[in-house]
Amino acid sequence: MKKTIVGYQGVKGAYSEIASEKFVNLAKVKNAQIIAHTSFEEIFKNIVDGKIDFGVLPIENSLGGSVYKNFDLLAKYDLEIVLETSLQINHQLLTLPSAKFSDITEVYSHWQGLAQCEINIKKLLPNAKLIEYFDTAGSAEMVAKEKNINIAAIASTKAGEIYGLKVLKKNIQDEVNNLTRFLILAKKNKKSGLEVDKNKLKKKTSIIFTEEKDESGFLFRCLACFYLQKINLTKIESRPIPGKLWQYYFYVDFEGDINDEKVKNTLATLSQNASYLKVLGSYYF
Amino acid sequence: MKKTIVGYQGVKGAYSEIASEKFVNLAKVKNAQIIAHTSFEEIFKNIVDGKIDFGVLPIENSLGGSVYKNFDLLAKYDLEIVLETSLQINHQLLTLPSAKFSDITEVYSHWQGLAQCEINIKKLLPNAKLIEYFDTAGSAEMVAKEKNINIAAIASTKAGEIYGLKVLKKNIQDEVNNLTRFLILAKKNKKSGLEVDKNKLKKKTSIIFTEEKDESGFLFRCLACFYLQKINLTKIESRPIPGKLWQYYFYVDFEGDINDEKVKNTLATLSQNASYLKVLGSYYF
Repeated sequence: MKKTIVGYQGVKGAYSEIASEKFVNLAKVKNAQIIAHTSFEEIFKNIVDGKIDFGVLPIENSLGGSVYKNFDLLAKYDLEIVLETSLQINHQLLTLPSAKFSDITEVYSHWQGLAQCEINIKKLLPNAKLIEYFDTAGSAEMVAKEKNINIAAIASTKAGEIYGLKVLKKNIQDEVNNLTRFLILAKKNKKSGLEVDKNKLKKKTSIIFTEEKDESGFLFRCLACFYLQKINLTKIESRPIPGKLWQYYFYVDFEGDINDEKVKNTLATLSQNASYLKVLGSYYF
Repeated sequence: MKKTIVGYQGVKGAYSEIASEKFVNLAKVKNAQIIAHTSFEEIFKNIVDGKIDFGVLPIENSLGGSVYKNFDLLAKYDLEIVLETSLQINHQLLTLPSAKFSDITEVYSHWQGLAQCEINIKKLLPNAKLIEYFDTAGSAEMVAKEKNINIAAIASTKAGEIYGLKVLKKNIQDEVNNLTRFLILAKKNKKSGLEVDKNKLKKKTSIIFTEEKDESGFLFRCLACFYLQKINLTKIESRPIPGKLWQYYFYVDFEGDINDEKVKNTLATLSQNASYLKVLGSYYF
């Protein structure tokens, strides 16, 4: 039986790997194989090339904010968002088994991991230096490899287990509610064949739009298209357009399915205002 | 004569240091002393405590986008934006004097620096690994200290000179127009005493707002306040509110002075819609 390949970014023990496992269970993906990727863009490319079936992409954390780079990739590549899943993020302060609080002078993690634990780390380790690393689980791997009792990592329980580290302090995120939203990506217009419990979930739609002329009131007129159809926006983000000075792509998530009459009307009106409009997907969340 | 202390984040040779020098010349700051800080938050704290007079804060790059962390600090602290200045960012690929292209296996820089040069680096060094570092100039300092011909940094010409590195490739940013906007911060309601050529510059105003109830159409109604007074927005950003799941602060920059009649009217109407509204400053740019 053909394997269904699911890609995530990071090393073993990454939150994206845990989200991939959650997705595979939730959507009852048959014969799933979950594969690590070194960059987010590699995931996009591999889906386009048909090398993998799904990509699991962190898009926003409730404390740290958007994963901005991934918005740029959604604009650059033509993939489809087929599902969203949220993961409760519990960060662990991981060290070598012999390390004590008084040993720690440096704490490594992804900037999002550091941002989500900043207040607690400053209380626990007021003199420790916080150092950005490319990945949360990667910082745990590095602490294990370095065999240095003076450094700690912020990563998942799973990463701690994989790399043989001790949890020096449990659940150190600054807020109990620390959620990351992950988007599941697939090739455009390819039936995903995912099973979802439709009674439990609502649908939302994600779009990107912009206009060339950069006219005053553009965003207001675009939001009016939604307001007049009583469509609720759940998220708005802006990112620079490469090569256009101080001009932006707007990313909007809103409640509703692309086949709803009022969503169709909204997008029709919006496309008259915007010079560029791309639908990223209509999906359960 | 009393010194006027200007703080920036980073090590010697940082773009923020160059922007600080530009600010000192532009605003004819007398007896200026420009001082490095290890973090952005340290600058905010030192201004609050009266230890420094001005802070120079990168807020947005035309290619890499917003410096998101600094939006959070503008919400957290009560400082005033007194001026904006833009700097053309020319990134240099810096190496040890003896290094050749074929030696380079890793390129270090701040994630914004990497993002701004990504396409060119991939053309010049298709197999090199791009590694995030806390600071552009800091990555140049690190290459010099490591004395490793296999690593390169992306930083300013000035950083290359300070740390004795060679420019292996000049101006490697992906777009010729690569500008960073810097905000000059000072204590609130303290007359800044800055000299500005009022004939050459326009004023804009920056605000933060949100609402507690998270009602549908909130952002639309807020943008309507500006639209109805024909005020042009130049930037909108959103950031998570700590402790409130999927709720956001909105940051808006718009053309006009806080004392203009139509700006007063707009903010009066806006304050009836928003549960929280803070003016960050009205300043020349």
